Amino acid sequence: MGFLEDCVAVLERTPLALDGMLRGLPEVWTEADEGPETWNARVVLGHLIHGERTDWMARLEIILAHGKARPFDPFVREPAMEPGRTVASLLDEFAGLRRENLRRLGELGLGPAQLELEGMHPALGVVTARQLLATWTAHDLAHILQVSRVMAKRLRADVGPWAEYLSVMR
Amino acid sequence: MGFLEDCVAVLERTPLALDGMLRGLPEVWTEADEGPETWNARVVLGHLIHGERTDWMARLEIILAHGKARPFDPFVREPAMEPGRTVASLLDEFAGLRRENLRRLGELGLGPAQLELEGMHPALGVVTARQLLATWTAHDLAHILQVSRVMAKRLRADVGPWAEYLSVMR
Repeated sequence: MGFLEDCVAVLERTPLALDGMLRGLPEVWTEADEGPETWNARVVLGHLIHGERTDWMARLEIILAHGKARPFDPFVREPAMEPGRTVASLLDEFAGLRRENLRRLGELGLGPAQLELEGMHPALGVVTARQLLATWTAHDLAHILQVSRVMAKRLRADVGPWAEYLSVMR
Repeated sequence: MGFLEDCVAVLERTPLALDGMLRGLPEVWTEADEGPETWNARVVLGHLIHGERTDWMARLEIILAHGKARPFDPFVREPAMEPGRTVASLLDEFAGLRRENLRRLGELGLGPAQLELEGMHPALGVVTARQLLATWTAHDLAHILQVSRVMAKRLRADVGPWAEYLSVMR
């Protein structure tokens, strides 16, 4: 297995992981956040959907078509999510968009040379297609981490003396 | 929904979340760790199985039967896992044990008064049944967090300049 296949193996599993974790979960969990200006699980799903729509594959296609000549559009990290979207509908949409994006990625048939092609990030400067794929993958994992952390911290007072053993509470 | 039902909602989903994340994933991911003396995803699964077998429900039953009179057995946090166990077989075993433990928990039919019953932790002192259930739940989430973090950090060098935006890499 190569680098691309390893990334895809994670990318195709993220919708399953989030679905297993969140579908049907009571709102006390999916609406919990870490305080003002922080995200709950539903907002994280909206953010992941926004990334599928406008960020990852769009940027990869800019690299392949234009290289460094055309900088990426800036990614708005705070999505304007339609209010009232349910977790279930967000999970469905994320899974569908991810499936379609991985289908497009597969069709590109990227080889090692293309992974080294360069693009221009509007803030970070020169980046490669390979770095973009690694970041897409790590970004998924970072948000699974975030959702777990936010949910665990809801229980900070409830665990009592056990907080000492749970580094997530600190 | 009450506190117990909220905990169970998470506890019953943890096997699904880990299954979605890990089943069939290449070993580069499931064998990755954070350095010497740290855990990979397979070891985390072994640890969760050990908790199902010897920790959570066993301790709850000690609280209900003996209160503070009989301290819990110390929990060995470093399980002696049979070498060569596959991720798939660990996921299957964890799901089965969790299902059985939640069945036993449901049969107890714990009410609010029983959640306040006290037990004696060998190191932490007096704890309640409610705190035990909260800790079981938070412990699940802490290990989903850990698996996500370990996997993300495998990509630290690969993401290049994007590391700046990924707090998980720090």
